[in-house]
Amino acid sequence: MSPGTERVKLTPYSDDLLATARALGAATLHEAAGRIGALPGAIQAVAPTMRVAGPAFTVEVPAGDNLGIHRAIYAARPGDVLVVATRGGTEWGYWGEILNEAAIARGLAGLVIAGGVRDTHVLAEQPFPVFSDGVCIRGTLKNIAPHWLQRPVAIGDVVISAGDLVVGDRDGVVVLPPAAVDAAVAKGRQREADEVDKIAQIRAGVRTLELYGFGEG
Amino acid sequence: MSPGTERVKLTPYSDDLLATARALGAATLHEAAGRIGALPGAIQAVAPTMRVAGPAFTVEVPAGDNLGIHRAIYAARPGDVLVVATRGGTEWGYWGEILNEAAIARGLAGLVIAGGVRDTHVLAEQPFPVFSDGVCIRGTLKNIAPHWLQRPVAIGDVVISAGDLVVGDRDGVVVLPPAAVDAAVAKGRQREADEVDKIAQIRAGVRTLELYGFGEG
Amino acid sequence: MSPGTERVKLTPYSDDLLATARALGAATLHEAAGRIGALPGAIQAVAPTMRVAGPAFTVEVPAGDNLGIHRAIYAARPGDVLVVATRGGTEWGYWGEILNEAAIARGLAGLVIAGGVRDTHVLAEQPFPVFSDGVCIRGTLKNIAPHWLQRPVAIGDVVISAGDLVVGDRDGVVVLPPAAVDAAVAKGRQREADEVDKIAQIRAGVRTLELYGFGEG
Amino acid sequence: MSPGTERVKLTPYSDDLLATARALGAATLHEAAGRIGALPGAIQAVAPTMRVAGPAFTVEVPAGDNLGIHRAIYAARPGDVLVVATRGGTEWGYWGEILNEAAIARGLAGLVIAGGVRDTHVLAEQPFPVFSDGVCIRGTLKNIAPHWLQRPVAIGDVVISAGDLVVGDRDGVVVLPPAAVDAAVAKGRQREADEVDKIAQIRAGVRTLELYGFGEG
Amino acid sequence: MSPGTERVKLTPYSDDLLATARALGAATLHEAAGRIGALPGAIQAVAPTMRVAGPAFTVEVPAGDNLGIHRAIYAARPGDVLVVATRGGTEWGYWGEILNEAAIARGLAGLVIAGGVRDTHVLAEQPFPVFSDGVCIRGTLKNIAPHWLQRPVAIGDVVISAGDLVVGDRDGVVVLPPAAVDAAVAKGRQREADEVDKIAQIRAGVRTLELYGFGEG
Amino acid sequence: MSPGTERVKLTPYSDDLLATARALGAATLHEAAGRIGALPGAIQAVAPTMRVAGPAFTVEVPAGDNLGIHRAIYAARPGDVLVVATRGGTEWGYWGEILNEAAIARGLAGLVIAGGVRDTHVLAEQPFPVFSDGVCIRGTLKNIAPHWLQRPVAIGDVVISAGDLVVGDRDGVVVLPPAAVDAAVAKGRQREADEVDKIAQIRAGVRTLELYGFGEG
Repeated sequence: MSPGTERVKLTPYSDDLLATARALGAATLHEAAGRIGALPGAIQAVAPTMRVAGPAFTVEVPAGDNLGIHRAIYAARPGDVLVVATRGGTEWGYWGEILNEAAIARGLAGLVIAGGVRDTHVLAEQPFPVFSDGVCIRGTLKNIAPHWLQRPVAIGDVVISAGDLVVGDRDGVVVLPPAAVDAAVAKGRQREADEVDKIAQIRAGVRTLELYGFGEG
Repeated sequence: MSPGTERVKLTPYSDDLLATARALGAATLHEAAGRIGALPGAIQAVAPTMRVAGPAFTVEVPAGDNLGIHRAIYAARPGDVLVVATRGGTEWGYWGEILNEAAIARGLAGLVIAGGVRDTHVLAEQPFPVFSDGVCIRGTLKNIAPHWLQRPVAIGDVVISAGDLVVGDRDGVVVLPPAAVDAAVAKGRQREADEVDKIAQIRAGVRTLELYGFGEG
Repeated sequence: MSPGTERVKLTPYSDDLLATARALGAATLHEAAGRIGALPGAIQAVAPTMRVAGPAFTVEVPAGDNLGIHRAIYAARPGDVLVVATRGGTEWGYWGEILNEAAIARGLAGLVIAGGVRDTHVLAEQPFPVFSDGVCIRGTLKNIAPHWLQRPVAIGDVVISAGDLVVGDRDGVVVLPPAAVDAAVAKGRQREADEVDKIAQIRAGVRTLELYGFGEG
Repeated sequence: MSPGTERVKLTPYSDDLLATARALGAATLHEAAGRIGALPGAIQAVAPTMRVAGPAFTVEVPAGDNLGIHRAIYAARPGDVLVVATRGGTEWGYWGEILNEAAIARGLAGLVIAGGVRDTHVLAEQPFPVFSDGVCIRGTLKNIAPHWLQRPVAIGDVVISAGDLVVGDRDGVVVLPPAAVDAAVAKGRQREADEVDKIAQIRAGVRTLELYGFGEG
Repeated sequence: MSPGTERVKLTPYSDDLLATARALGAATLHEAAGRIGALPGAIQAVAPTMRVAGPAFTVEVPAGDNLGIHRAIYAARPGDVLVVATRGGTEWGYWGEILNEAAIARGLAGLVIAGGVRDTHVLAEQPFPVFSDGVCIRGTLKNIAPHWLQRPVAIGDVVISAGDLVVGDRDGVVVLPPAAVDAAVAKGRQREADEVDKIAQIRAGVRTLELYGFGEG
Repeated sequence: MSPGTERVKLTPYSDDLLATARALGAATLHEAAGRIGALPGAIQAVAPTMRVAGPAFTVEVPAGDNLGIHRAIYAARPGDVLVVATRGGTEWGYWGEILNEAAIARGLAGLVIAGGVRDTHVLAEQPFPVFSDGVCIRGTLKNIAPHWLQRPVAIGDVVISAGDLVVGDRDGVVVLPPAAVDAAVAKGRQREADEVDKIAQIRAGVRTLELYGFGEG
């Protein structure tokens, strides 16, 4: 049985849905879901071609302590996206080459962290999407205070729960609650089709004012 | 029947517990609960003598839109503390004299907001504790996008749910989940008693290194 | 002839209008003018009781250079409010006791500066309102680059021109173009009267939802 | 008649001047004009090869509302550079693929915005230079408050008026008032020629201390 | 023998010098020393009347760890000012009532910390000056990584060495190397005398332009 | 005699050591030295492939004044890394093509600056590594206040002395005191070898929890 088949069973989102979500991208799904779940713009992909879609495996670690991330790598299921909050401590390097290798070995889908990463020359070349709000060499400690796995975490003004759909690309990252996903993906597909049509009309000379019905103002 | 009696029935926390929590203060309860729930230090009382304790009534409003706060004032129960997240839009004046009057009329216990307030010359003199991360005259709009009441909100790195205990004073604000409250209050009382004893010992010449058993280092 | 009489002639705003504007305050005039002209919330009064109203005398100085402020004190007319932009250099002490004395001697109405001030123990006690976004002892230099007087300056997202009305109080500072002032003051008076009425209604049990016609939502 | 010819008539700057300004670049023109008009360093090109030069078409929109940008695209003339201030609301995606297509269809010269953009994978590949201070997926609303076209706007510490010359490249963006342009371009050319000579001398072993006459210090 | 006499022997600065430095204040000594040693403006006194002068006892602690501060209290000499750097971790409460009591018991002169403090309702009332860049309830840990005592520390853009003179008041904090102190104090006294004279002249109608010889510009 | 040989004599670090340090990189040496000396994550290479290793030649300049940098280029020895602190004034372009040429002509090893640079289209292509915390066109002045060469400087929370080893790469910059270098390089080599082994084990299915002995948690 292939890992792909296995993943279908393990996650609430089908491979098809995840592929579609990844292709639609963060901005489209954010809009399609009613403009919710946008993580702070500072959280960006380590390399511009990186894209991710998968269920959130949430992690909260003490500032400057990455032991919880080690544990999360082995507690998460293949296909999960680690979503890590760091209690305000962004100026540390919580993730590097070793953890990246471990996450790849585990079949995880990606990492989203409100905190720094390092070994970026390696991370940028590997097939594992990493989204972070900074690069920092400052080394973390282990186990200085409790960490939590799979509890709701706060990043920016978004509350992220275990199993939420995480989608990231060059524009940033969106997080959607499971109940909103199917409608958002369907609406996102429609939105994308509409955009192709709108662009054709714009190129033909139609104004966005008419396309969207804004009137003359 | 007095409003105080009424409040006992309406909230999950007794008047006694709330009075104790208010007296113990934010820092002590944060410590006693295992160092959780500290809101960002930028959220401070409008006047240094203000103190608050009560269950959270959570509100999330669009940046620059305070309609949800109007609705929350009338949806909350007497004794509730409004806890308002503003989707990153702190540079607005979401709250002023009128809403303060309305909150007092409704018997609410206080306001904690990740956003600006105004009419501070009035707010500072009134018997309603307001904690905010800034003062700003910029006027808000109404109903530019959906707001939510009683859903979990994110402020700093803390996820706040409806009914969490909110305690604030001159040092800042802590938010504790209901399940942690009783133990935190009990431990906080003990901690306070210990501190009185510790201070006496320190004044008598004992070093904190011995008081806490840190050794010689 | 008294300085007060003289000032009436020299400025475009009458003493009555200025007194009214000062009493209405920054937040009310900002609202009454259509929510324009709010300076950043970080610009606050050095002492909470300070209030100012007067025409802007605009100054732009190089970061860390206060010579232009010296010149402005003597180029401005009595009753003017110095409005100083510092090209992004806030972490300096551009203003202190000496300049405060000079401004008082000249009969200026106040200072609004996007930059630091010092000698705050003196400034806080003197009858000259100072609004600044920080306190800083770092001493400025003189004449390191050109300064400009009475040209439009940018503070936050507001463009301020010479002669704009500046009104500040404990809530912050608003700047209005002359053409908007009369209507804003008239509307502000009405707004203030309305607020007195609204507060009476709120105290009598009326909800803000009805007062403002927000409906049930 | 070609669009290029048409544009000569429509704008106050000749095609030759614009080509020269674009080639000289932002830093050289900023220096040549007497060190004025530097926008904040955070405003950077979406792709490092982007360059822009053209007259400013200024836009001020409410935070989180891009209707004014739609209108500006059709009110501006071909060759104009949209310069958009967003009243402090940078954490939104005001511009994306659709508006980029519309701007290209209209023959606009570029966009400079103190706010976020999205669809950056598309923007980075298209022949339309975009300068922004962030990437953000957060979707904007329409018409929540008035916008203004062609009024002076404030970005950083620079006041930008309609028709000012905007020049941007990998180093950032400079804005010059029309009266300063001819002299700045002439001086910039000279400066550039001087730099070629200076670099030759440096490579030959001359010290910058002599080149600039700094003396021994 | 009085503690005062004792302190003279223990510190490199005489009681007279310290009293003078405290009276002159931070801004005057910063200027008199040639505009050096200004700590960031965000570091402010917990209560506006607090003043401090004394030799620096430098401390560097890991972010979120205050064990080094406990040790410093007992390693420092009476009259020393603790100067604490926290490796970028300001959002913690490193200091509170207990440490304040311990510092008073030890006869220390004050605390300057690039980090948060708590129990501010107590600190503000006690005879021990505390200067900090924030108030925060977040509890610190102990011994998560090494701390250092009496090594040079960096706060803002100032390098502070053990024994440097620290002077703080409502305007902020200045730090001077020992070799600069005597001249700075002497020049500061002269400066203060000059200011009295300058203020008298200003009140008599002399312009600062003449007082400082700025000419007509 | 080759420049390489010459450099061996001039600097305290051998060519071999510098080559090894450059290859090991900033994060590894930071860890190997006991997690010290990490400059703020915002200081990044102008181009991702840039790497630097060499002894620090420290420079402190007034905000907005780069004369000290000109002098430092000629005071430093070939192989030195200029490390420039700018007294909090990052929003300026202190360094550009001319200084880059001068530094190359002098055989310097690189630049690390807490401040802006410009002419980045040139800097990114040249064989001279530049690490900076921003790009900014704002032109600097000369000699507005004293600068210092080879005195300790503060960048972030790190005190940097003349002769400290500076190592930078895509992850950021570390600065180590001379006494810590040999051990750090030796330990870094070992660490690197360990990482190769660890990665092989991870790829073979071993968990990081066992590799590091974290236990089950």
